[in-house]
Amino acid sequence: MYYFAPVTVFSAKVEMDNVLQVVDVAEQVANQIRVSLASQGALAAWNVRLTRLTPGECEIVLPMSAAVTQQHGYFHGGVIGALADVAGGYAANTLLMPDNECLTAEYKINIVAPGIGERLIARGRVLKSGRTLVITGAEVYVRNNGVEKLCAIMQQTLFVIPVTSNPT
Amino acid sequence: MYYFAPVTVFSAKVEMDNVLQVVDVAEQVANQIRVSLASQGALAAWNVRLTRLTPGECEIVLPMSAAVTQQHGYFHGGVIGALADVAGGYAANTLLMPDNECLTAEYKINIVAPGIGERLIARGRVLKSGRTLVITGAEVYVRNNGVEKLCAIMQQTLFVIPVTSNPT
Amino acid sequence: MYYFAPVTVFSAKVEMDNVLQVVDVAEQVANQIRVSLASQGALAAWNVRLTRLTPGECEIVLPMSAAVTQQHGYFHGGVIGALADVAGGYAANTLLMPDNECLTAEYKINIVAPGIGERLIARGRVLKSGRTLVITGAEVYVRNNGVEKLCAIMQQTLFVIPVTSNPT
Amino acid sequence: MYYFAPVTVFSAKVEMDNVLQVVDVAEQVANQIRVSLASQGALAAWNVRLTRLTPGECEIVLPMSAAVTQQHGYFHGGVIGALADVAGGYAANTLLMPDNECLTAEYKINIVAPGIGERLIARGRVLKSGRTLVITGAEVYVRNNGVEKLCAIMQQTLFVIPVTSNPT
Repeated sequence: MYYFAPVTVFSAKVEMDNVLQVVDVAEQVANQIRVSLASQGALAAWNVRLTRLTPGECEIVLPMSAAVTQQHGYFHGGVIGALADVAGGYAANTLLMPDNECLTAEYKINIVAPGIGERLIARGRVLKSGRTLVITGAEVYVRNNGVEKLCAIMQQTLFVIPVTSNPT
Repeated sequence: MYYFAPVTVFSAKVEMDNVLQVVDVAEQVANQIRVSLASQGALAAWNVRLTRLTPGECEIVLPMSAAVTQQHGYFHGGVIGALADVAGGYAANTLLMPDNECLTAEYKINIVAPGIGERLIARGRVLKSGRTLVITGAEVYVRNNGVEKLCAIMQQTLFVIPVTSNPT
Repeated sequence: MYYFAPVTVFSAKVEMDNVLQVVDVAEQVANQIRVSLASQGALAAWNVRLTRLTPGECEIVLPMSAAVTQQHGYFHGGVIGALADVAGGYAANTLLMPDNECLTAEYKINIVAPGIGERLIARGRVLKSGRTLVITGAEVYVRNNGVEKLCAIMQQTLFVIPVTSNPT
Repeated sequence: MYYFAPVTVFSAKVEMDNVLQVVDVAEQVANQIRVSLASQGALAAWNVRLTRLTPGECEIVLPMSAAVTQQHGYFHGGVIGALADVAGGYAANTLLMPDNECLTAEYKINIVAPGIGERLIARGRVLKSGRTLVITGAEVYVRNNGVEKLCAIMQQTLFVIPVTSNPT
């Protein structure tokens, strides 16, 4: 009989080492980002957690669960891409908020290793901040038995827009 | 015995207008693709459905649900990207299976309109089929009140590998 | 007085089958594009010729010469990319001019076959035209002994700006 | 007899500050790269110079000339892309040669500032080296009155092939 093991992993959920670190980012901005991330249904369904914010940088973590797997039980490539997209966007938001935020215009991602492990860690950072467009890069690592391995590399273009309704 | 749980979930939610159309693709290949797609936890969690297969082309549909939204309740950009990635990959598989399949090496996606609507439709097609690499394109449309609108455009590179273990 | 040196070089080498076809594009716009293209030193040095303009589409041709080769004497990959970039940009300009034009924000190109032949033909077309960003696609074909073969596939994001100084 | 014309052109224009620095790269490999670069007609026509090689990294320089300009006399976007493509490819070759080399499968480049200045400097580096595919990144800087400014950011996928005929 086929038993869908990853569901069990999923239930274990939030660990102690996922406290959010905020370094040199205003509390208002960190709050905006936290609230924005929490309000995204897709990220809530995956149990994505925000783990680090510094000016121009954002780290998020995604634990393994049945909801993020491909056919071999590894992290799904589309999920890896989505995580990189989100990390890049919030990296930009650390510089744009509280008044502005950004939309993804486009991104390009190379999957460089299969997503085999217990969690993904995506680290986005701003490469160039313009008035209308922001360019970011992100790496996604997969942690397996405590060892991080590079899994994907992304380059992204974001479009700056005003924050129309402050969700805080 | 191999019991394929996600298939059940998958089948249960298929609506009348989401019957799979298979045109000029061998039944064995269509089955491989159906089983492969159903075995991807991420796609089952989103209730992604396979709606059309022709040689070098694949159409899949994603209905709106809380699990695929961003902060405004629209389809999440990362989900849109994941859907395009999947459509491109299975478009390639229509030409590669039964003996080979593919892994995503990289993709690039432009989000050209917000994903506002009741479902996403991703249409992937092979642009160039080589021995080691396959290049595909995909468009993602969002259907709102019966009207389809272009939402995203993807270009993708896939890596050909042998089918190591046939899940059927 | 404005003396337009590259035009001379450009005109001298036009072959009989490289007459510019303009279909449903205003003469003013076609002229703007012709002058703009001729004023680009890089394109003049390569003897790039404009062969077709329709609304949202542009075709340009690049003949083989020592100045466009890589180490095996084929068309250089970077030259192929540059040609696709230019074709996409002028495809957008057919819709933006006379008042606006565009700058390349980014492009992504797959080289799908070596550039072996006597000329490259790049065909760009607008995939989505927005107020600030235009998305285009382009294919580059290489013609060898009269047979065209797909050589590269591009997807591009352009940024719309006003025409500040009309070079005509 | 094979007479290697481009080498002459190349050597003639090297300025005093463009001596090639080679750090921890075997002399045979550095020679292969130098000869390969010199044998590319497109790069010779632009007077591209190789300025630095370290394992997994390559720096090349392109001086301003009429042959590399767009309509405003700045460095052409397509030329900027070609330069990044070349820098990424030779960065990979520092790790692949003497037995293997690479072909560009695809690249994606963001132009982040106009190429205004007296020279471009492209710096490529390997991000992930696989058996079949190598992923690189490159930045292109433009130097204007001695000040370097970031001009473009590239991400690239290369395909590994054996060196079939050693040009040395």
